[in-house]
Amino acid sequence: MASLKRLLIGKPMETKRLKHEKLPKWKALAVFSSDALSSVAYATEEILLVLALLGTSVFFYSLPIAVAILVLLLLVTLSYRQIIYAFPSGGGAYVVARDHLGTKISLVAGAALMIDYILTVAVSISSGVAALTSAFPGLLPWKVELAVALVLLLMVLNLRGITESATVFAYPTYVFIGFVLVMIAVGGWQLWQEGWHGFTMHEHASTAHMFASGYSLFILLRAFSSGCSAMTGVEAISNGVPAFRPDSSKNAAITMGWMSALLGVMFLGITVLAAGFGVTPTEHQTVISQIGRHVFGNGLLFYLFQLATMVILVLAANTSFAGFPQLTSIMAKDGFLPRSLAARGDRLVFSNGIILLSVLAIALIIAFHAKTHSLIPLYAVGVFLSFTIGQSGLIKKLWNREEGRKFGVLLTVGTGAVVTGIVTLVTMIAKFTQGAWIVIVAIPLFVWMFIRIHEHYKKLGEQLRLDEREWQQREKLLKPKVIIPISGVSKVVAQSVQYARSISDDITALSIIFDEKAEQKLRQKWEKFYPDIPLEVIYSPYRTILSPLLEYITKAEKEADRAPVTVLLPQFIVKKWWHTFLHNQTAIILRFFLIMKKDVVIATLPYHLRE
Amino acid sequence: MASLKRLLIGKPMETKRLKHEKLPKWKALAVFSSDALSSVAYATEEILLVLALLGTSVFFYSLPIAVAILVLLLLVTLSYRQIIYAFPSGGGAYVVARDHLGTKISLVAGAALMIDYILTVAVSISSGVAALTSAFPGLLPWKVELAVALVLLLMVLNLRGITESATVFAYPTYVFIGFVLVMIAVGGWQLWQEGWHGFTMHEHASTAHMFASGYSLFILLRAFSSGCSAMTGVEAISNGVPAFRPDSSKNAAITMGWMSALLGVMFLGITVLAAGFGVTPTEHQTVISQIGRHVFGNGLLFYLFQLATMVILVLAANTSFAGFPQLTSIMAKDGFLPRSLAARGDRLVFSNGIILLSVLAIALIIAFHAKTHSLIPLYAVGVFLSFTIGQSGLIKKLWNREEGRKFGVLLTVGTGAVVTGIVTLVTMIAKFTQGAWIVIVAIPLFVWMFIRIHEHYKKLGEQLRLDEREWQQREKLLKPKVIIPISGVSKVVAQSVQYARSISDDITALSIIFDEKAEQKLRQKWEKFYPDIPLEVIYSPYRTILSPLLEYITKAEKEADRAPVTVLLPQFIVKKWWHTFLHNQTAIILRFFLIMKKDVVIATLPYHLRE
Repeated sequence: MASLKRLLIGKPMETKRLKHEKLPKWKALAVFSSDALSSVAYATEEILLVLALLGTSVFFYSLPIAVAILVLLLLVTLSYRQIIYAFPSGGGAYVVARDHLGTKISLVAGAALMIDYILTVAVSISSGVAALTSAFPGLLPWKVELAVALVLLLMVLNLRGITESATVFAYPTYVFIGFVLVMIAVGGWQLWQEGWHGFTMHEHASTAHMFASGYSLFILLRAFSSGCSAMTGVEAISNGVPAFRPDSSKNAAITMGWMSALLGVMFLGITVLAAGFGVTPTEHQTVISQIGRHVFGNGLLFYLFQLATMVILVLAANTSFAGFPQLTSIMAKDGFLPRSLAARGDRLVFSNGIILLSVLAIALIIAFHAKTHSLIPLYAVGVFLSFTIGQSGLIKKLWNREEGRKFGVLLTVGTGAVVTGIVTLVTMIAKFTQGAWIVIVAIPLFVWMFIRIHEHYKKLGEQLRLDEREWQQREKLLKPKVIIPISGVSKVVAQSVQYARSISDDITALSIIFDEKAEQKLRQKWEKFYPDIPLEVIYSPYRTILSPLLEYITKAEKEADRAPVTVLLPQFIVKKWWHTFLHNQTAIILRFFLIMKKDVVIATLPYHLRE
Repeated sequence: MASLKRLLIGKPMETKRLKHEKLPKWKALAVFSSDALSSVAYATEEILLVLALLGTSVFFYSLPIAVAILVLLLLVTLSYRQIIYAFPSGGGAYVVARDHLGTKISLVAGAALMIDYILTVAVSISSGVAALTSAFPGLLPWKVELAVALVLLLMVLNLRGITESATVFAYPTYVFIGFVLVMIAVGGWQLWQEGWHGFTMHEHASTAHMFASGYSLFILLRAFSSGCSAMTGVEAISNGVPAFRPDSSKNAAITMGWMSALLGVMFLGITVLAAGFGVTPTEHQTVISQIGRHVFGNGLLFYLFQLATMVILVLAANTSFAGFPQLTSIMAKDGFLPRSLAARGDRLVFSNGIILLSVLAIALIIAFHAKTHSLIPLYAVGVFLSFTIGQSGLIKKLWNREEGRKFGVLLTVGTGAVVTGIVTLVTMIAKFTQGAWIVIVAIPLFVWMFIRIHEHYKKLGEQLRLDEREWQQREKLLKPKVIIPISGVSKVVAQSVQYARSISDDITALSIIFDEKAEQKLRQKWEKFYPDIPLEVIYSPYRTILSPLLEYITKAEKEADRAPVTVLLPQFIVKKWWHTFLHNQTAIILRFFLIMKKDVVIATLPYHLRE
């Protein structure tokens, strides 16, 4: 086990090696935007899949929906640039809400963010596998297995402690950006040459009728919500401001602008090409891969494009492996999650957070059969909820500032908060039955869990605090009353007796026998070796050791008054693992139950077997 | 857990209730012969399945093969009647061999018997499920699941301690016997009316040619070996002699005669009907169920017959649940198997043996997909090996007797031993590639395991024996050196210190810190509360507690000279199970490694949390 761990995870690292690298803008863009930019691999498809409920005749409406999303992106970007300036130490929605909106709202943000991180892994990996299977359809039956394997790979890499900022991770993002921009340019030119041969604005009476109905409007809203998945991850830069070179806030704000511009161009371009070429979503090929095949043909370029898509999606999933453990460690330090999530492992990473994220993402992937489309409805709610909370926190902060309230900034952020709030509500309603209900149920459950954990730690702290007065009262010394359970006289017993004599002079040997006739023989032998130590023999008609022992201890506790009762239990330490099966493990079971049920000290004496 | 156990297993029983009921012959026949008699449900089919390799034209040869098996049955029966008289206290091949042929041969017999018991469960249950699916083909996809469920049911019933001799278990055997005898009578009459319309003795040149080839002879031998599965379980009565009413040997011998006669009639009758009706084995219906359908039609009687077949097969499997734990408990007492196999559970049965048998049988059922036909080749080797050893033991015993050697008896048993020995070899060779090799490999492995276990216990006994001289040398009293690992000052630490003071005055507190700056603050607080107890602070750059602790203990052991080193570890006892996740489980891990690696006493102090 230990050597397997070393092989996978590597040698432990000293705490001193914890350090933070400062990134130039070009690298920071790649590091922080893989999550946001990779969303273009599925966002357009998600819009079309929802519109398909009304028939392909409405596919053209993906274009106005995309434009609406771009407007939303612009609003959020402007708003988050202000967040970057206001919170130069980063932090994200949880910290912002904790410091400015109170504990309860911060816990909602924490829950939303945790769910988001988990979904980012599940969605990105599922989508990455879809990019792979679009190129190699033979792999389709192994979708779930491939996705699980990728999550496990990310887990191991992150337990080793890859630095997210490694230069090697920056290139694939640019490769993907390059591919998409070239695809949009070439595809646009092809479209110019071939003419628009895809979806058009129909003017049928049926269409007009359709849009009059509430159902159709509802579906359009749902398509919009699905498209909003393009915006997941745009907040990443605002969390990572300290990683930028100084002037870090300014550099981060510039980078954020670039990222949003790239995202907008890529998302709109892909949506236009899909409409222009008339691409319809299918089970076996993603929309973006169909566009890629159309533009690049069926040759090497197409396969490289699919590879690039998969790689950026895996990188996007990887960003959660930095964000989730960071968030849970902060929440654990605040006492809202188990403290073990705040402990750094061998390689200085928050190992437990990494493992927890992997387990939860794998559970989601298996439950939803690695289908991006089934996971998306769970996604947007948390993202937009945390957008809303983050911006509200900033408004509160700006408002509380006595002087220098800037009206323009307040208006920008206020608009952002209101709009993202509305989008959150729209998403909740439009996608409720598709799976958003799961998140709506999960968030309050998470918050309830955080509160319960916090209460436990608080009460525990009070209970364990040592005040001086009480401490002085405790200092009474009484020798322990020692009980040695025996089944015969052997070297093991001799060792126990010797130890018992070294710590006390109130010693009793206790033998629980299953056969009444055994008592006489045992007594004789005992008295030969230990005439000064009383031997109690209890006959157990049901051949159980535990209950007579518990009874005896209850009695002993009363007699001992305030002296601590100590039970000595020997434990054989075997030389070969299989020898374990040859020895009675009663001691281990006894130890477990005694310590659960009684206030006795259990002293375990190892007996290292030579053979 | 405990209440689930009570529900399934029932209340514990007192040791005094261990008693043995004496059975009348009619009941003993039913109790001890379900294993042997139930074999007719598959033996004929196994012969035909092997003959099918040569084509259906040779199916007629099932008749002479059946006759050969009947001759063998006669020999073994005569021989085992002598074993009944010679070993009136029962015992079986292992005990007979141990007492008369030496340890090694007894271990071979023990291994063969253990394998046999496991296979009896796997084969009988698989065959029982086949009886069920022959009537209800819709259950075919659930074969393995049904078989596993039946084994688990038998396990639970036997852990409750059903008495094998309960009258309720006697009836199904007679119902099955009745059904088969009626089937043979009615079927024989039908055959008389309809004329022999099944397989006949062909006189084709091809057939003659075929039999000239060695391959065909080999297949015939293999068919014979398969048919020998009819004889599994005939030794059961000889193991159970003490359960008969007096004159027990005589009564057992008479019962044995009856059982063999019934077995012979049923087996021959079924084989004749199969040949006469021209039944060929198929995947979905057993041969015996095809005969049943032919004779009884497709009505209620047929379904009842299938049910009766299934029930007797399950009873046959149940006999192993008496035999296997009995055998393993004897071998465990002899020190060849883990001692836990000799301990009686709550309900006075050898629970561990029952569980072990169930686990192994389930493993076989799953590995062989609950296919009787795949399991049969593993079966006969062990059975005939133990027949051979049992009879050889009797010969040895008779030979060693100074006076009254009866030539007739020696001849009978000698012939039996030689013939079963030959059949063992034939089976090994004819079925080697089909799976007999597994048993041929397993038996020496088991024997090797028995010997290793025995050596371990022997050396252990020597090591633990306390002789008086050595015991007196040990009696030097030195107060333990107590180490208290701490991470701060709290009530838990106060409790540990108080206990430490009650057992020794050589106490050191040890704190392992991950942050060098923490030392100063800790020291100040410590000195305020415990100025008299030295505090050691170790900085652990790799954030591990175990290795610096182990190092410190190594040093402490040297300094302590011969005083025992004692480490005090507190353990939180939580009120709610989920609180476990909120506490560091370091103490448990430390305890495990310390006790494995060092010769230190670990005293665990429970701290029962109020919240």
